[in-house]
Amino acid sequence: MATQRYYLHHHPLDPASRRVRLVMAEKEIPFVLVLERPWEPRGEYLALNPAGEVPTLVIESERGEAPIILSEASAICEYLDEVYSTPPLLSDRAEDRAEERRLTAWFERKMYAEVTAHLIEEKALKRMRGGGEPDSARIHAAYHNIHGHLEYIGWLTEQRNWLAGDQLTFADLAAAAQLSVLDYMGDVPWEKHQTAKDWYARLKSRPSFRPLLGDHIAGLMPSKSYADLDF
Amino acid sequence: MATQRYYLHHHPLDPASRRVRLVMAEKEIPFVLVLERPWEPRGEYLALNPAGEVPTLVIESERGEAPIILSEASAICEYLDEVYSTPPLLSDRAEDRAEERRLTAWFERKMYAEVTAHLIEEKALKRMRGGGEPDSARIHAAYHNIHGHLEYIGWLTEQRNWLAGDQLTFADLAAAAQLSVLDYMGDVPWEKHQTAKDWYARLKSRPSFRPLLGDHIAGLMPSKSYADLDF
Repeated sequence: MATQRYYLHHHPLDPASRRVRLVMAEKEIPFVLVLERPWEPRGEYLALNPAGEVPTLVIESERGEAPIILSEASAICEYLDEVYSTPPLLSDRAEDRAEERRLTAWFERKMYAEVTAHLIEEKALKRMRGGGEPDSARIHAAYHNIHGHLEYIGWLTEQRNWLAGDQLTFADLAAAAQLSVLDYMGDVPWEKHQTAKDWYARLKSRPSFRPLLGDHIAGLMPSKSYADLDF
Repeated sequence: MATQRYYLHHHPLDPASRRVRLVMAEKEIPFVLVLERPWEPRGEYLALNPAGEVPTLVIESERGEAPIILSEASAICEYLDEVYSTPPLLSDRAEDRAEERRLTAWFERKMYAEVTAHLIEEKALKRMRGGGEPDSARIHAAYHNIHGHLEYIGWLTEQRNWLAGDQLTFADLAAAAQLSVLDYMGDVPWEKHQTAKDWYARLKSRPSFRPLLGDHIAGLMPSKSYADLDF
C-alpha cells in the first residue's frame, strides 16, 4: 500500500467523531484532525460531505490519485476494519457481528438521542453558537435516561468481558465515545454505577484513549476528573 | 445448512422493516411476517428486542438449537448479506461499500428524520393510536424536505445506473423503503421528479417489491397509485 495521509474532519463534542478517533487509534493509523463546526458547515466542507455532519475521513495518496472521501461514522469504521484488519474490531462469526453492530447502533443512536444530544445541545452548543437559554426539561430528561444506559452497560459487562463478548469491539468504542463526551461535561453519575465505571476505567487507560483525554474545547472546561485515570 | 425458519417482526409503516423485507426477498429467503405495534410493545417482544423497535428477525433451526435473534435493520441486513451472499447487496471493494453504507444511512436516518417520521407520526400514527391533532408545521416541513431527497436520487441516478454505482445495493433498497411508505400515504410528488420516478419504477417492478405492494394497513387506505406499476 502506498503511503497515505489521513485527515479526519471532526468536532470534539461529537461522539461519532470520537468513535472514529478511537477506532483509528486502536488500529494505530496516524491521522491529522481538522476541526469543523457542523452547526455552520463551510461550503468547502459541504463539498466533502453533503450531509454537513461530522465525521468525514479524507485519505490522500502520495501518488496523486484522487483522494478517498468517506463519511458517516459506521461506513468509515466498517471501511477501516475491512482495510486494516489488525486488530479486528468485529468478530469472525456473522451472528456475533450482528450483535456487535446492534449494540453499536444502540449507543450511537439510541443513547445519543436520549442522553448525549440533549446535553451537548443545551449545555454546550447553545452557549458556543448562541441559541437562547438551556431547556431544563431536556436536561432533566437526559439525566434521567442516562441511568438506564449505564445499567445496561453494567448488566452486559457482568456476563461478558466486553460489551458484546470476549473481545473489545465497535460496541465498546461506540459506548465509550458517548460517555467520554458526557464525562467531559461532568455529567456521568459514576458513583451509582460501579460496574459500568470499572468497564470505562479499563477503556480509559488504553493508549487509544489518551488523545481524547487531552481534548480542550474553547469556552468549555473539562470536568475535574475527565483526564484522571483514577476517577 | 439445516432448514431454518425466519420470522420477521415488523410494522408495515416502518421503512426499516420494509428494507429488511426487500433484502430478504432479493435473496429469496422465505419468511413469515409477525405484526408488532412498536408504540406499545408487548412484553414478549421486549424480551426479543429491548429497544422495543422494529424490525427483529428470529431464525429458528429445526434441530432444536436456540434461535438466533437479530435486531436493528443494518445489523440484520449485513448479517443476511454475509450469510446469503447471492445476490450480493454490497460491492466487493471496501471503498464502494463505504459509499453504499453512507447512502443507506442517508436515507434510513436523514431522510427518515426529515420526511418520513413526520408524516408517519402526524398522518397515520396519531390516528391509529391516538395522540391528538396532526401538527401541520411538521407536515409542511416534510413536504418541503422531500424535494431535496428526490433531487438527490435524481442526481445520483443520472450519473450511475443505481444509487451507489452499477449494481443494485442496500442504498437503493433503503431509499425505496422510505419512498414506499410515503407512496402508500400518497405523499410523493412524482410529477416534479421524473428521474427519481424512473428509478423507483424500475424497483417497483422487481419481484422483491410485490409483497410490499400488497400491504393493506387497517384504518389507512393506500393511495390510488400505490400498487400501480404504471403510476
